[in-house]
Amino acid sequence: MDKFMQAAIDEAKLGLQEGGIPIGAVLVYNNNIIGRGHNRRVQLGSPILHGEMDALTNAGRRPAKIYRESVLYTTLSPCMMCTGAILFFGIPIVVIGENTNFMGEEELLRSRGVKIEIADSEECKSLMRDFIVARPELWNEDISI
Amino acid sequence: MDKFMQAAIDEAKLGLQEGGIPIGAVLVYNNNIIGRGHNRRVQLGSPILHGEMDALTNAGRRPAKIYRESVLYTTLSPCMMCTGAILFFGIPIVVIGENTNFMGEEELLRSRGVKIEIADSEECKSLMRDFIVARPELWNEDISI
Repeated sequence: MDKFMQAAIDEAKLGLQEGGIPIGAVLVYNNNIIGRGHNRRVQLGSPILHGEMDALTNAGRRPAKIYRESVLYTTLSPCMMCTGAILFFGIPIVVIGENTNFMGEEELLRSRGVKIEIADSEECKSLMRDFIVARPELWNEDISI
Repeated sequence: MDKFMQAAIDEAKLGLQEGGIPIGAVLVYNNNIIGRGHNRRVQLGSPILHGEMDALTNAGRRPAKIYRESVLYTTLSPCMMCTGAILFFGIPIVVIGENTNFMGEEELLRSRGVKIEIADSEECKSLMRDFIVARPELWNEDISI
């Protein structure tokens, strides 16, 4: 497993331990993690803090050029909100743990020039699948259905 | 001036008083404001807390049906990140104070069925124009250029 995807998975597991939704992400610049985070809907009562948004928050204020040379690793295919953020910040590459349990806006990302890599990680898939089975109402709330 | 756009403008002015970027938003459900906020990049060091995202944060966790019957008022045309959030939550109507100083992703919103109303408010325009002239580096950072 790529060390950065492993860091995103570690974030997802941390979220699960906290009673949250197990989705994690890291923002990598110049081969270093500059922001890491996980879904904190439950922990902070925030509907916008998906894993990717939490990682962007924790990366803090950065010049535009940093985002444009960064890679975002996320355990799950990015929803429309996180896709919007990826495009807004101009992140050129997104590595996705899995898109079996949820398929986000990968086509929109690709159509705007973002390179997508699917890790197809069994660990990401089982983490998410087990959670969806255990807490379907929370999962549905998180994807706004 | 519509009372909800006025509330969004009040939020923008509050942000300016705090030393921040003067963009505000309110989320309205059933003729009541359920979330209000303003850009807090400077105040909290957060790159994701645009006015719209702050209002969504402050609205807290809501069932999907609430968003789908809500109206978002924002003093400035929504960027790609905020557009993604609007589409993700399924907010059907967005009232925009102005799109002269910044034109966001209105076409994408319309293409996905969101109804857009442009208030074309002189107060919104002058608030933003004065800020851009005074703090161009901060404005550029906020729109990630």
